[in-house]
Formats: sequence, C-alpha cells, structure tokens
Amino acid sequence: MSNGTVSLWNGEGRRIHIQEVGTRDGLQAEEAFVPTEDKIALVDALSATGLAKIEVTSFVSPKAIPALRDGEQVMREITRVPGVVYSALVPNIRGAERAIDANTDEFNLVMSASESHNLSNLRMTRAQSFAALSEVSALARQAGAAVNVSLSCVFGCPMEGDVPEATVLDWCARYIEELGAGGVTLCDTTGMAFPTQVAALTRAFRARWPQTELTLHFHNTRGLGLANVMAAIDAGADRFDASLGGIGGCPYAPGASGNVCTEEIVHALALMGYDCGVDLERLVSAAKRLPPLLGHDIPSQIVKAGRRLDLHPRPADFEAIRERALGRA
Amino acid sequence: MSNGTVSLWNGEGRRIHIQEVGTRDGLQAEEAFVPTEDKIALVDALSATGLAKIEVTSFVSPKAIPALRDGEQVMREITRVPGVVYSALVPNIRGAERAIDANTDEFNLVMSASESHNLSNLRMTRAQSFAALSEVSALARQAGAAVNVSLSCVFGCPMEGDVPEATVLDWCARYIEELGAGGVTLCDTTGMAFPTQVAALTRAFRARWPQTELTLHFHNTRGLGLANVMAAIDAGADRFDASLGGIGGCPYAPGASGNVCTEEIVHALALMGYDCGVDLERLVSAAKRLPPLLGHDIPSQIVKAGRRLDLHPRPADFEAIRERALGRA
Repeated sequence: MSNGTVSLWNGEGRRIHIQEVGTRDGLQAEEAFVPTEDKIALVDALSATGLAKIEVTSFVSPKAIPALRDGEQVMREITRVPGVVYSALVPNIRGAERAIDANTDEFNLVMSASESHNLSNLRMTRAQSFAALSEVSALARQAGAAVNVSLSCVFGCPMEGDVPEATVLDWCARYIEELGAGGVTLCDTTGMAFPTQVAALTRAFRARWPQTELTLHFHNTRGLGLANVMAAIDAGADRFDASLGGIGGCPYAPGASGNVCTEEIVHALALMGYDCGVDLERLVSAAKRLPPLLGHDIPSQIVKAGRRLDLHPRPADFEAIRERALGRA
Repeated sequence: MSNGTVSLWNGEGRRIHIQEVGTRDGLQAEEAFVPTEDKIALVDALSATGLAKIEVTSFVSPKAIPALRDGEQVMREITRVPGVVYSALVPNIRGAERAIDANTDEFNLVMSASESHNLSNLRMTRAQSFAALSEVSALARQAGAAVNVSLSCVFGCPMEGDVPEATVLDWCARYIEELGAGGVTLCDTTGMAFPTQVAALTRAFRARWPQTELTLHFHNTRGLGLANVMAAIDAGADRFDASLGGIGGCPYAPGASGNVCTEEIVHALALMGYDCGVDLERLVSAAKRLPPLLGHDIPSQIVKAGRRLDLHPRPADFEAIRERALGRA
C-alpha cells in the first residue's frame, strides 16, 4: 500500500482536540444522582487535564432527566479555565433561558438525521426539531453564545438502518447555511459507524464546509470506536467527543460499550505521536473518581490495565527461577 | 493526508486470513473444564465458518493446564475440513509425541522475546527455549507437520517494558533461517502494541522475509486491538489470530479484555470490504455456545449488540407519537 499511509500512524505532534461528554452523555444514563458538589469537582478536575471542551450538563426538563436537574448550579459554580469551552445540551427555549442564565459558552443542539429516531427519541418530526432549534439558536446568538449542532444517527439508525449520506449533508447544510451554526457533530449514536463510511462522510463534510468546526462522536458498541477515530483523522478530522471512563451506554445494546472512552483515546493517540494537549495522568485520576460516584465499575480499559508502560514487578522468586535455569545449562 | 490511505478503509475484496485461538488461548485460562465432546463440537462448528486455521489445543502437561488435558482426544475426534489448518501449541518433546500421535497439522512453538517474561513464564532462558524448540521442530519435520513460532511480548514486556525491534528480528531470524520455521506469529501478549510500532515491525518483517507466513496476534487489553489490525494490514499483513467471544484474559490486567474477538474483527473487516472468507452468522452462533460452556458472560460486543444492521423495532406507540407530532404542525 501507499507509503503515504505511514503518516496516519505517526502523528508527529499534529493537534487533535478531545471533548469530554461524560458529564452529560454519561451521567444522564446513570441511575444514581451524583451530588452537585461532586459534579462540580469532577468538571474542575477535567478542566485541569487540558481537554478542549467539556459538555458540562443538559438543560432538559428536570422531570425528563432528574440526574441532571442541577445543571444551572453546576454550570455556575465550576471554575472556568481559560481556553476550555464549557458547553451544554439545550433542547428548547426554556433550556436556552437556563443556559443563558448559567453563562454557557456553547449551546449544543441535538436532532436525529433519522425521522424514526427523532420521533421516537424527541417526539417531533425532524422539521419540527429544526424549527424549535432555530429559535434556540437565535437566543444563543443574542446572548453571544456559540452554537453547535449534534446530528444523531448519521452513520445509521437502529430502526431504519442506513441513513443516506445525502440526507446527512442536507441537514448539515440547513444548520450551517440557514442557521449559521459554527460547529457540527456527526454522532454515531448506537455504534453503527464503520471506517469506510466514516472516511467518506468526513471527507465530504470537510470538502464542503472547510471552515466549520467538525466533531466526530463515536460509540464503541461494536468495538469499532478507535478504528473510526483513525479513519476520521485520515480523512481530515481533528476533533472528537469521548466519555471519561467510557461511561454512557446504548439502550439498544445492554451490556455493550457506549461512548468511546476519553482516556483510551488519549492514551492511543499519544502513543501514535498525536498531541491531544491532555495530561493523561490527571485524566486517569479523574476517571478513578467515577466508580465510587456511580456505584459501579466503569468500562475504561486504561483504568483496569494501566498505561502501556505501567510495568509490573518480576515474580518474587525470579532470581531463584533464573539460577535454577542457568544451573541446567 | 494522502489519497493512498483511502484504500486501507476500502478492502475491495482483499483476502485476510483469520485464525481462531480461543479453543487454546481462551479455554486454557478458564476455571471450568469444558467437556471433551463440547470442545469437539465447538471446533467442528468453527471449522464450518471458513476460518483459515484453528489452534485446537495445547499439548502441555495435563498437570500444568488441566483444562486442556484432553488435547489428543479433541485433536483426533474433530471432523477435519479440507483447507482448514488444525494447529496446537507444542512446548516440548513429550508434547510433540502427543501432537504427532493426534495427527496435528501444524505445531505452534512458543517463546518470549523478553528474557524476563520467558523465565517467569516458561522457567527457561530464551537460549534454552530455542534449544528445546529446535528438537520439537525436528520432530515436527520428521512427521511432516508444519512449524509456526509464536514470539510473545514482541511489542513490549510487562516487566521489562519496550523490547527492541532488533531483538525481535534477531529471534525471528534464528527461527526462520536456522530452524526453517514456515511461519512466525508476532504476539502482543499483554496488550502493549500500538499502531506506529505495529506498522514499523510488520513492514520490517515483510521486507526481510516476504515468503514467510506472518501472523499478528493482538490483545485488546488497552482498547487498541482493531486499530493495530488496521495498522498491520496497512503495512502488508494479511493474517491475524483472534479468539471466539473475545475469551482469554491477561493476568496482568484483571477485568480488562484479552485476545481480540474473532467475530468483532470479522464483522469490522467485512464492513470495510475485506474478504475474511468467514460466515459471520455461523461464527456468532458458535460464540453463543460459549457462555453456557464457560459458566460466564463473554466480552464479545457483537454477541451483545448484534451486527451493524441487526435492526430494532420502532416503539409500540410509534404511530401515536407521529400522529401527535403531526397534529402540532
């Protein structure tokens, strides 16, 4: 194969931006309510790692997602680190008002590229979602906040199957060109993305909107998470969502992995020579806070196995083994 | 990046050989003794999937690994499918005699590229292992069996850290050029491999021994398994070990993943257009036999989540949701 491909595996200091979504996409799926002060401490620990962006919370109805009912307080009381973007999911006008009150840097607007998924999940048609999010976007602009749009199911819908690339790009066009969204996140909501498709969609997006901030959001549901990240980098992407500890599941695949794990992605990319700007040791320390907060183990393989060069001692009887072996020579 | 890289993500029917190691590397780590007739039925099910090679068992001392004490009977009583290579791990002369009696197609000889790991694991120096395996190799030759050498820890040793590429290539040279081994497996025994290194070592091996059958054996301990497979393919590899259900752990990382999972690798490569020659449906059926045999859940994400296009029904009240939504328009 082409020698040009060598460079994909040699990052040579190229910058990759890592965005934490565990505090929103992860915690919203948890049964346990994580106390507000622990959420704040967790975001503050994440802010100190060098992550580019943190999705702090979701301003959805507290009745719909009680786990994040303290969104305003968390967003207000975290310690903002200059350079880090603090975003939140904002589904509607009421949420926008709360997000503005809490001084949210960036509004993350969510809609599905699949009509069936949008109706099932948000109880609106995609056209209705677009209309509602247009109003949210206008409020964000007035308040001076940035707007990012997360399109769910762009790599496949668990009910409809493949979602045509043209459909995905049409919705991107409406948000970027009609609404003026500054960023788009292409979300693999249920882990259906595969590298061939990821490379093609990333390349198509990048060619059409070279100035728009593009994020890829992968789930590791079928074990393809890191391979999809590499295919996206190969096609020109440099910004990825990931979830601390790998928390955040998939309702369609009980027991399977959810979001790609932040410390696994950072560990892997750092080994390949990419610059994520993230202090892996601090990141792993932050991940280790999760099990006691959540009351259960986390998927993170790096928390379980350690980093590549976290070495182990030789067996206690190693010298005796060696002497016996050499005695046989 | 280079357009040449597009082809890595577009297999276009290129052949990749998948070799099953779960029946050896997986079962040897299990506490439960899987009944002999179930082992035979499992290998027979695997033979019908289209896998290139199956490591059926290990002819180690029954005292050392009682889980595989029935190696001869399993190897003798499986139904051989033409084209499938039936291999076994053979550690010593006694094992070689048993392997020959059982009509083993290929002897898999194992040694570590790390002196500390070889001593800790096999209680011999590497030089002693080479001498012992030379005798095993000579017996295999006399019996007309093929010889493959699996070099452990070539991507790092959990006690020593990095193993120099020159050391790895020196041991490959001794086995290929002095012993005449027909194949070499580069093993990432404890999940320390990363793509940059994998691409470099694969390329170096391929350049020096273009005619030798090269297998890469990855563990997913730190979530890098599939990315390493892709880096190896990019560097010219076309043959990989994998373990059904992802069984087979790592003693240095309790709870972390072990061997890369056969059905995850086949699922991923098939989506990218590679030809593994494997019937994924049969493979998944074989994997589903494992939990009752082992008495526990298996890591396989494909068994948990299904294949990419195994779709889910819309919610029962989907039409009502849609009508309510449209009524608001």
